[in-house]
Amino acid sequence: MQEIIGASLVFLCNEKCEVLEDYGVVFDEKIVEIGDYQSLTLKYPHLKAQFFENSVLLPAFINAHTHFEFSNNKASFDYGSFSGWLGSVLNNGGAILENCQGAIQNAISTQLKSGVGSVGAISNHLIEVNLLKESPLNAVVFLEFLGSSYSLEKLKAFEAKFKELKDLEDKKLKAALAVHAPYSVQKDMALSVIQLAKDSQSLLSTHFLESLEELEWVENSKGWFENFYQHFLKESHFKSLYKGANDYIDMFKDTHTLFVHNQFASLEALKRIKSQVKNAFLITCPFSNRLLSGQALDLERTKEAGLSVSVATDGLSSNISLSLLDELRAFLLTHNMPLLELAKIALLGATRHGAKALALNNGEIEANKRADLSVFGFNEKFTKEQAILQFLLHAKEVECLFLGGKRVI
Amino acid sequence: MQEIIGASLVFLCNEKCEVLEDYGVVFDEKIVEIGDYQSLTLKYPHLKAQFFENSVLLPAFINAHTHFEFSNNKASFDYGSFSGWLGSVLNNGGAILENCQGAIQNAISTQLKSGVGSVGAISNHLIEVNLLKESPLNAVVFLEFLGSSYSLEKLKAFEAKFKELKDLEDKKLKAALAVHAPYSVQKDMALSVIQLAKDSQSLLSTHFLESLEELEWVENSKGWFENFYQHFLKESHFKSLYKGANDYIDMFKDTHTLFVHNQFASLEALKRIKSQVKNAFLITCPFSNRLLSGQALDLERTKEAGLSVSVATDGLSSNISLSLLDELRAFLLTHNMPLLELAKIALLGATRHGAKALALNNGEIEANKRADLSVFGFNEKFTKEQAILQFLLHAKEVECLFLGGKRVI
Repeated sequence: MQEIIGASLVFLCNEKCEVLEDYGVVFDEKIVEIGDYQSLTLKYPHLKAQFFENSVLLPAFINAHTHFEFSNNKASFDYGSFSGWLGSVLNNGGAILENCQGAIQNAISTQLKSGVGSVGAISNHLIEVNLLKESPLNAVVFLEFLGSSYSLEKLKAFEAKFKELKDLEDKKLKAALAVHAPYSVQKDMALSVIQLAKDSQSLLSTHFLESLEELEWVENSKGWFENFYQHFLKESHFKSLYKGANDYIDMFKDTHTLFVHNQFASLEALKRIKSQVKNAFLITCPFSNRLLSGQALDLERTKEAGLSVSVATDGLSSNISLSLLDELRAFLLTHNMPLLELAKIALLGATRHGAKALALNNGEIEANKRADLSVFGFNEKFTKEQAILQFLLHAKEVECLFLGGKRVI
Repeated sequence: MQEIIGASLVFLCNEKCEVLEDYGVVFDEKIVEIGDYQSLTLKYPHLKAQFFENSVLLPAFINAHTHFEFSNNKASFDYGSFSGWLGSVLNNGGAILENCQGAIQNAISTQLKSGVGSVGAISNHLIEVNLLKESPLNAVVFLEFLGSSYSLEKLKAFEAKFKELKDLEDKKLKAALAVHAPYSVQKDMALSVIQLAKDSQSLLSTHFLESLEELEWVENSKGWFENFYQHFLKESHFKSLYKGANDYIDMFKDTHTLFVHNQFASLEALKRIKSQVKNAFLITCPFSNRLLSGQALDLERTKEAGLSVSVATDGLSSNISLSLLDELRAFLLTHNMPLLELAKIALLGATRHGAKALALNNGEIEANKRADLSVFGFNEKFTKEQAILQFLLHAKEVECLFLGGKRVI
């Protein structure tokens, strides 16, 4: 059934990042028409119509990179350096995975309350999949491969696990694949996973150059990772698994891939991602980056490389909140760019660009997009010029959330 | 009556920023003794004793710079540039001051819940003074002078207002003075206020070089401020009220002064503050700085100048939260320094250094300091190495707050 909603401020989240006043949307499962709210109610007098004063109507958010499986973590991992963190994850990660269903349920609830309608979930054990299926969220679940030495057996088990995930696909849940990172996946194994993605027309995701340690190792086989394999994995690798960052990037040539983090990627590496990878998207997780490497993504560099950036929460393995709104505020604090401009990048990074990264037909208010819409109420109306920034500063919890046209909050 | 409290982790907030395990405090109005909790209970078996597992015991925080009078603001002021903000405050500030008692009450409650025991409150109208007196907070109220032209009448009225504040002084509330900023206070007026501070042995506070616009005007009589006086104040000033930053600094020679913001102060200016001002303290308000100028305080520079830094919330005129814990997290996000080191600066900036800035006998767990103590409970114990950082990341609300030895939460 079609209905109309409108609000004193509407963020279209289109390329121009337009903010409109007293605007509205006619929708069923998809957006049918957008326009001046008053005109829409006159044009469609028989439809149920609701206007939200002192409110912002915008597309439901997309949180394109999170790890639900780590939702139990509070303070078991060490922050302040990437190497310290990675060591603590390898030492304490197992305990965090135990009995995490309740914590994942809370994490899903946090997504919805913060206005998120779609998630990109990195999964190692598929613990979250049934909970995601039961929830109203759209999910792209990236089954993640980790393995720094070749093992056909491991690959077969992974393929079987991917089939298991594939079988759970439906309108709301898509199966996808993740290659963990250049320091943790042996090249032939990575190529096999990438081939699996091509064969199954799946999206790919990979963590990429999120620390100086990783850059030093991948480019020069030097630094902290020299002892990593011996110490943690009891394997001997005296050289990086790749002949530099380009060697890694080039594997993703004919794919749709989300490159996550990238703070230590040079302009050349970003340009190579843009030129070599068919559909390439950058994801930044500012809070996680602050806790581990202490380095934020260089937005000027990503702009120069012509790559779009989505903002995502990462998991509670490296964050204190899974609210995408908290993450967007962290983005505003950690990036040193004129604030009104940065606010637009944040908003589009959580809507339009996230949708493109996850290949979803939402993230924008436009006819024929899925009616994934949120409304946030405030006690006062923001001025048009300040609206996006003030929204990002003050929004805490959705008042209404429609997913596929159905009200879920 | 003396009692003992202890916790699994105790932050002394002394110069070395020591973290002790299973430590305790014997106190009445003041701290009597500190030591291993078990040993204290054996030494004083007759005293009431309470131990907090998985908890952090630390000095109550000091929020050395806030403007309670603006507690009504949410989105009436423009963020993204200092000049835009200042213009909006001059245009809309009056409305924000109306009926702000309830909002101030909430702001005071937020202080206490976030573990703050002492505040430095900048006041223009003394609206908050009675509410502060009724609350358990220790307060230093800085009556603020603003006036860009000489007026004996205005000065007399200000002196009368200061006497009114002085008369309200008690054990918990101290009267102090503030000179608003170099761009807003005429020199002879500033000198009179400073003389009043000297005569009454009062602390002083001033906003200082928080924007590039201010720096350009004070140093070179150029930039946005060229039209400011004409446009907003209908006064003609074609030159800065001071012959450079040093001219302003030097006025504070024999005083105890809190310099607030300082992001655009050169190393030379900071060194001059250190060498010229008898007792000089820097206050930084990271969230406010992000919203207005977009520039954070250079901590390397302040260290080189030998000045200590306190972290404070500023008012809701340029913040979204008056929780000092939120502010400390913003400090961690906006300053690019190794995280564990930064966490110590944050903690001392909210305790020890805040106490010194406000000349209070608290902010540290040490015998003879006032027993202003807080306890925060968590579900797990932090490792000693990560304790300060994890505390700052996860602390939301105090479990217990003792002020002058009396439990207030």
